[in-house]
Amino acid sequence: MPEQHLSKAKLILVDQDGVLANFESGFYAAWQAAGHPHPALPLEQRRSFYVRDDYPAALRAEVEAIYTAPGFYRDLPAISGAVEALTTLLEQGHDVRICTSPLTQYRHCVPEKYEWVERHLGAEFVTRMIVSKDKTIVHGDLLVDDNPQIKGPCTPSWQHVIFDQPYNRQVEGTRMNWANWRDVLAL
Amino acid sequence: MPEQHLSKAKLILVDQDGVLANFESGFYAAWQAAGHPHPALPLEQRRSFYVRDDYPAALRAEVEAIYTAPGFYRDLPAISGAVEALTTLLEQGHDVRICTSPLTQYRHCVPEKYEWVERHLGAEFVTRMIVSKDKTIVHGDLLVDDNPQIKGPCTPSWQHVIFDQPYNRQVEGTRMNWANWRDVLAL
Repeated sequence: MPEQHLSKAKLILVDQDGVLANFESGFYAAWQAAGHPHPALPLEQRRSFYVRDDYPAALRAEVEAIYTAPGFYRDLPAISGAVEALTTLLEQGHDVRICTSPLTQYRHCVPEKYEWVERHLGAEFVTRMIVSKDKTIVHGDLLVDDNPQIKGPCTPSWQHVIFDQPYNRQVEGTRMNWANWRDVLAL
Repeated sequence: MPEQHLSKAKLILVDQDGVLANFESGFYAAWQAAGHPHPALPLEQRRSFYVRDDYPAALRAEVEAIYTAPGFYRDLPAISGAVEALTTLLEQGHDVRICTSPLTQYRHCVPEKYEWVERHLGAEFVTRMIVSKDKTIVHGDLLVDDNPQIKGPCTPSWQHVIFDQPYNRQVEGTRMNWANWRDVLAL
């Protein structure tokens, strides 16, 4: 479809993991590499937003060990089409920010989120990062996020657009991916 | 003065360095310890918000080496009265967040800001952190910040209360410190 310029520049908050960074493929590969007897769950079988909720409760420590390990966040691959879409949105004049919630175990996660953005989107994009557990406190027109239920004490100014993933399809709402985002966001 | 309960709970954003963490004393001590021939500048002689602007331009690399070194942010002492004030504000029912802008050289600064908050304010307070170069995008009633000129593309919802420091006295505005904050914020 032809490039479509939106009628008005928007402030678009984009979540990082599960939207830009491929947390799922990173977890799957690391779980397999760890040699756990419990099989890694393919993305299409994931049903809960938090991966730990899709594995047996007895394996919670093993699950957390995967994504709290040094290098896990840094080395996540990019989700196909994400980098190109963000670049296009900026070119269209929109103000794009990365709005990401850190793990409670912040030690590796937080600096590696910054490294990831620098590597995949460039140093200028690092200045566009907002790291906050609470996304309702962040102003925006749109929030593109794979978490289908974003909670917080403030009344958000943004409209939530669900980034489509197998684990969030039980929730109704506007949803998009990096193949159809032009159609959805142009609404 | 007697404990005064504000009429209405407020969302109060509090900057970290120069307001909670004593960047100035940390820098002074580290500069002295480095043995530079140029003398360390006492706080009362500081005039620019960015410490690098108060030292000769030829020493910029040496100045930046101080605050980008591992451990610098982690080991900053707390500003006297800050921790007690934040605890009191929470007890009074206010929603207190830490709103902090990271260095462009984020590697040590960002995770160490989290470590600092955990050490001085506790793990629960870590969930109250918002790390963002742009503070105009963060919603709040008040922003307590020693940077006298906070810029950004959004129209902020907060009122800026300048945290009084020798290097921001050239700017007019409501100002407070951790000795008089009850009077100022109760206005």
